[in-house]
Amino acid sequence: MARIVMKFGGTSMAGIERIRSVAARVKREWEAGNEIAVVVSAMAGETDRLVGFCREASSLYDPKEYDVVVSAGEQITSGLLAIALQAIGVPARSWLGWQLPVHTSDAFAKARIEDIETGTLLASMGAREVAVVPGFQGVHDGRISTLGRGGSDTSAVAVAAAVKADRCDIYTDVDGVYTTDPRIVPRARKLKKVTYEEMLELASVGAKVLQTRSVGLAMKENVRIQVLSSFTGEDAPMADTLPGTMIVGEEEIDVERQLITGIAHDKNEAKITLTAVPDKPGAVAAIFGPLAEANINVDMIIQNIAHQSAGSASATDVTFTVPSSDLARSIETLNQAKAAIGFSELTHDTRVAKISVVGVGMRSHAGVAATMFKTLGERGINILAITTSEIKVSVLIEEDYTELAVRVLHTAYGLDAEIEAA
Amino acid sequence: MARIVMKFGGTSMAGIERIRSVAARVKREWEAGNEIAVVVSAMAGETDRLVGFCREASSLYDPKEYDVVVSAGEQITSGLLAIALQAIGVPARSWLGWQLPVHTSDAFAKARIEDIETGTLLASMGAREVAVVPGFQGVHDGRISTLGRGGSDTSAVAVAAAVKADRCDIYTDVDGVYTTDPRIVPRARKLKKVTYEEMLELASVGAKVLQTRSVGLAMKENVRIQVLSSFTGEDAPMADTLPGTMIVGEEEIDVERQLITGIAHDKNEAKITLTAVPDKPGAVAAIFGPLAEANINVDMIIQNIAHQSAGSASATDVTFTVPSSDLARSIETLNQAKAAIGFSELTHDTRVAKISVVGVGMRSHAGVAATMFKTLGERGINILAITTSEIKVSVLIEEDYTELAVRVLHTAYGLDAEIEAA
Repeated sequence: MARIVMKFGGTSMAGIERIRSVAARVKREWEAGNEIAVVVSAMAGETDRLVGFCREASSLYDPKEYDVVVSAGEQITSGLLAIALQAIGVPARSWLGWQLPVHTSDAFAKARIEDIETGTLLASMGAREVAVVPGFQGVHDGRISTLGRGGSDTSAVAVAAAVKADRCDIYTDVDGVYTTDPRIVPRARKLKKVTYEEMLELASVGAKVLQTRSVGLAMKENVRIQVLSSFTGEDAPMADTLPGTMIVGEEEIDVERQLITGIAHDKNEAKITLTAVPDKPGAVAAIFGPLAEANINVDMIIQNIAHQSAGSASATDVTFTVPSSDLARSIETLNQAKAAIGFSELTHDTRVAKISVVGVGMRSHAGVAATMFKTLGERGINILAITTSEIKVSVLIEEDYTELAVRVLHTAYGLDAEIEAA
Repeated sequence: MARIVMKFGGTSMAGIERIRSVAARVKREWEAGNEIAVVVSAMAGETDRLVGFCREASSLYDPKEYDVVVSAGEQITSGLLAIALQAIGVPARSWLGWQLPVHTSDAFAKARIEDIETGTLLASMGAREVAVVPGFQGVHDGRISTLGRGGSDTSAVAVAAAVKADRCDIYTDVDGVYTTDPRIVPRARKLKKVTYEEMLELASVGAKVLQTRSVGLAMKENVRIQVLSSFTGEDAPMADTLPGTMIVGEEEIDVERQLITGIAHDKNEAKITLTAVPDKPGAVAAIFGPLAEANINVDMIIQNIAHQSAGSASATDVTFTVPSSDLARSIETLNQAKAAIGFSELTHDTRVAKISVVGVGMRSHAGVAATMFKTLGERGINILAITTSEIKVSVLIEEDYTELAVRVLHTAYGLDAEIEAA
């Protein structure tokens, strides 16, 4: 017997047929004697529809009323799943955010979960009743709050932490976390286990499996997450024997594990270069201060060595990357601050990609970065910028080389799956 | 300054453009210094969509979970109207059923409102904030409940009673209550005032303006209802000068009022005749007992005088009407009870119509029924059955004569509008 939180995304809840198949899957875990809470997203497309209504009603909508509107999507699916479970003989009931309650901060439309009361929830689960909890929603001061887009993963992890679940099974469109994008590298391998830290790096650089916030919360609360495919047939083995990916603490990872866990890529970066920035104290602050105020995340930064031309003060070029979606706002912000910064020209380029190698193993091994630079260099791939963290090395390259770079690095770090003998 | 409850139906809430025009109308009442609560329906079609999901998930759905699902429709429109009001400078907030709260009975999916707490609601309205209340929903024992289809009219009247509103303005597809269906009688007149009792009779015989339950509640709580068109332009006069219909207590009606208030017709009746029913004690109970158990409403009943043929027990024919929608179930129920009832043949006819003349004036005037029978007789319209109440006389006729009957009665009782002199 285990206590399990199961989470199903919008694609799994898109229509009654799919909700029925979710119910069948929940029933199998329940029949095995497990205590079950299920966290559900809204039907695919529903949240977009509701957000669209709010935006149409007013571009400056009240986040408290927005939350009243958009939380309805998960309210609907939680009731429907409870009905579908009861229809196949599984006792079930929905628990809305205000009913448990799920207490959140007062940041309506982007609230954080502060506390989940578990008394009634645990009593219900203990009495062999499946608890269906709408994701994405909570309550603050008697009013409905929501967690921001993709918040249902976070809800699932928070519920799992609150009820001290043995496992949080996240059913998603993919069947696990791979060493890299299998569409680029057919010999990519599915990882059996990955650490929270690695998952955070892989997620934030483009492996869109789980919402980043939910992984951070799982790490903090030590919740074991299992990523599973929601489209495996009913005959598939039970979740605890399914070949998904477990996201766990570092202590659960084998010592003999690989140096590098995965290769990620991200084409949603844009490069900005400011030329002839005066080389004086405060120049960098003049650039990045206004961007920070505009809530724009600057990632990689390269400052060239100052060059001095005859008869003028010394100056330098500054290059950095921002998310492509923030490029227009970045350019506007920098042009407004042009006098204060004192740069000569602003150029930008969206045809770049960030390639990252990630692995907790690199903590104890030197040479990871050197292998990366050498491998890319041998294929004539130019490195435009570099950043590193304890468990990650990222480089910026021209976008056209993305797939090539991922493939050669995947091979170089020994990640390719064995080809089975015929 | 007045305290007003305004209620808008699904057609008025169908899409953001219409919600915006509702907001503009609310703003005008608010700018006049009135305290306002607005009760809203779900967007047209939305409740059907949600009910459809529940039925698809299980034909025997849990009414508690059904309520979680279907209450979402009004939750969405209440948030959107609050946003639309704020966007035009009117302070507003939504108050969901569980927030006020609106306490209901435990009959989930068809609950009755028991009590509405008004402390926070009145404080909010008193502070010049428009209170937006989703119709149709309440709460029982911490769980969402709903009032059954069309329950938003009832919610509006209940809110008006709870806050002791001066008026409950119901905005609907029609612009008031008429002496009869204007599509049949172009000279039908819009009534300035009608009593609760008359409205109940008119509603239950086919004048579909307000939900019957809401009129009964208004009568009990003495809430003045005003029926208004939601499709009058923004330049229309204020609601208290609009030519809608007021639904009020009998004491507010002029003594010099007309004898008859209106003529209603209803084609949704079906006639059933059982032949050769044994004329013995208990025979009638054997017929109507099973129908009552099947929750089928029998309306008109005629029992012919018993006729005795030579050599057999005396027998009689029994004719009665049921709603057309219950005809199939009625036939099934009666055939199952055939042995117990002992009838010979069952015949049915859906090509009948019920015509009713309604008016509190007939209490003090004899001859209303006589005028009806004489008028219809002069046109050769055969009367198949008759029922009467204190303020109503109804007859069953062949369906083909419906329009003719309504027109000649409308004229006979002096209801035709004056034709204005050119």
